[in-house]
Amino acid sequence: MLEPERIIRLEEDAVVLLDQRRLPEEEVELRCSSAAEVAQAIRALAVRGAPAIGIAAAYGYALAAARGEDLDSAAGVLAASRPTAVNLEWALREVRAARDPAKRARELHAEEVERCRRMSEHAAGLVGEGFSALTHCNTGALATGGVGTALGALREAWARGLLQRVFVDETRPLLQGARLTAWELEADGIPHTVIADSAAGALLAAGEVDCVFVGADRIAANGDTANKVGTYPLAVLAARHEVPFYVVAPSSSVDLTLDSGAEIPIEERDPGEVNARFGAWNPAFDVTPAELIGAIVTEHGVHRAPYAEALGTAVPE
Amino acid sequence: MLEPERIIRLEEDAVVLLDQRRLPEEEVELRCSSAAEVAQAIRALAVRGAPAIGIAAAYGYALAAARGEDLDSAAGVLAASRPTAVNLEWALREVRAARDPAKRARELHAEEVERCRRMSEHAAGLVGEGFSALTHCNTGALATGGVGTALGALREAWARGLLQRVFVDETRPLLQGARLTAWELEADGIPHTVIADSAAGALLAAGEVDCVFVGADRIAANGDTANKVGTYPLAVLAARHEVPFYVVAPSSSVDLTLDSGAEIPIEERDPGEVNARFGAWNPAFDVTPAELIGAIVTEHGVHRAPYAEALGTAVPE
Repeated sequence: MLEPERIIRLEEDAVVLLDQRRLPEEEVELRCSSAAEVAQAIRALAVRGAPAIGIAAAYGYALAAARGEDLDSAAGVLAASRPTAVNLEWALREVRAARDPAKRARELHAEEVERCRRMSEHAAGLVGEGFSALTHCNTGALATGGVGTALGALREAWARGLLQRVFVDETRPLLQGARLTAWELEADGIPHTVIADSAAGALLAAGEVDCVFVGADRIAANGDTANKVGTYPLAVLAARHEVPFYVVAPSSSVDLTLDSGAEIPIEERDPGEVNARFGAWNPAFDVTPAELIGAIVTEHGVHRAPYAEALGTAVPE
Repeated sequence: MLEPERIIRLEEDAVVLLDQRRLPEEEVELRCSSAAEVAQAIRALAVRGAPAIGIAAAYGYALAAARGEDLDSAAGVLAASRPTAVNLEWALREVRAARDPAKRARELHAEEVERCRRMSEHAAGLVGEGFSALTHCNTGALATGGVGTALGALREAWARGLLQRVFVDETRPLLQGARLTAWELEADGIPHTVIADSAAGALLAAGEVDCVFVGADRIAANGDTANKVGTYPLAVLAARHEVPFYVVAPSSSVDLTLDSGAEIPIEERDPGEVNARFGAWNPAFDVTPAELIGAIVTEHGVHRAPYAEALGTAVPE
């Protein structure tokens, strides 16, 4: 697995990212020399994944502080870079409240690594022997700076000898599954098979999937979960085939200020990402209703419905 | 709309196809000079769509007859070119039984055009005023040689002033929706929006879709329907959102010899079509259970469940 500092790190004069747009073809680092450049890297998906963009924003703010940038403006441009994941706002609150933003940002990164480890251990307990799993998008090292959320759980299940295979939704339009998740699984020697997103129905109908694991960009107080577009159809299909559907995410992805998923802002991206010639609609996320989620796993443990109660207890306001 | 002979025609020494692999970038004709070359064009998807490959096979057989090829061998290679659509077998039976294969093949093409027109008129009656429709893959002129099946119905609904917009699944891995359906709709001036296949859940959840129309490659006696992979997830989502889901196909796509969809052979194609670098699974079709289908429309009318009865009456054995 990639070292956390390979994914993202703070240097004296830059935030340095492994440019995820270039993977798996080439491993190229991107140096961001200001908060605005970090925000642009987040918008352009050079770094993506809710936990990872939280870390990137924290480092971007620390860089701005070191450079003597206007800090309200730096925080503003970082917070506005992507609207759906709540981790950005949370990480910025943390570094803004710190006496030493660079030290706090590095702590946040280390804490995220530790949270990934803990939630992966909790979530791996949901995997039975010989299970095959289906996952969507990328929720691994690249998305978190740690072992991953959903993919971390599958790594841990593999390490325990439970997991047989990971089916990977390619995850259109930007193919984070086919490019990033398959690349991480190959590096770890975990058997994997990529499918077109639309083949998940046939795969589930064939009885090839024992569990579905996904991450989250924001979880409302009632358990409704925003995640990469295509997650909701998977949850509906899993329910039809009585295959358990699990969300794995740090408690920093839980937003207790929102009653339900209807209040989560959903980013719409450039139609050209889907189709450059004809008109397109390109929502980056969708919302999976809590009723379709078998468990939400955070670093605090495995939370079951009713989620309002479970998340309210587990997650500090 | 494209003229039937632009899509496919029989000349003295060749079957000439509009090469669908090159659309929408360029309109290039492909000349096939033997039954084997026609079979190769079908396998490679230069021509695709259940009705269109039936016509192509009929023309390929007629060409073989004119050239003095071994006709058993010609029919064999054409029948084996793609396994899921039953129209290939049906069209080959028709031309093999004819005294003049070329004349019969041209008749079949003309009959397909007429069947498209009739089923489109029946199916357009299912569209209410101001409806927006979602469709998958390409079921238009390119797929049929006529006005289309599901797309023919939407064309007719547009002509009647009922249709507001067509949402088009891009249809991975080969993007028949984004390349071919959007191109046909643009040519006809029908408002359209392409979406990633995985965005259909968000679109339905947003209440933007009033009806779903798809074609079919093979329909079993009980109404279970094999169609382009990704059709089944749409049907499951439509059911959840109480949006009617309709199949439009010529009666030649109904295979009364199969009791259920479990017996339909599903073609698996080259994994490289999905992902050339990592391992992939690439089923070209999936099966939608009859219980999720609001109506099956053929040239004979609108058939409702129980389909065993309705199809058994409508379709001559």
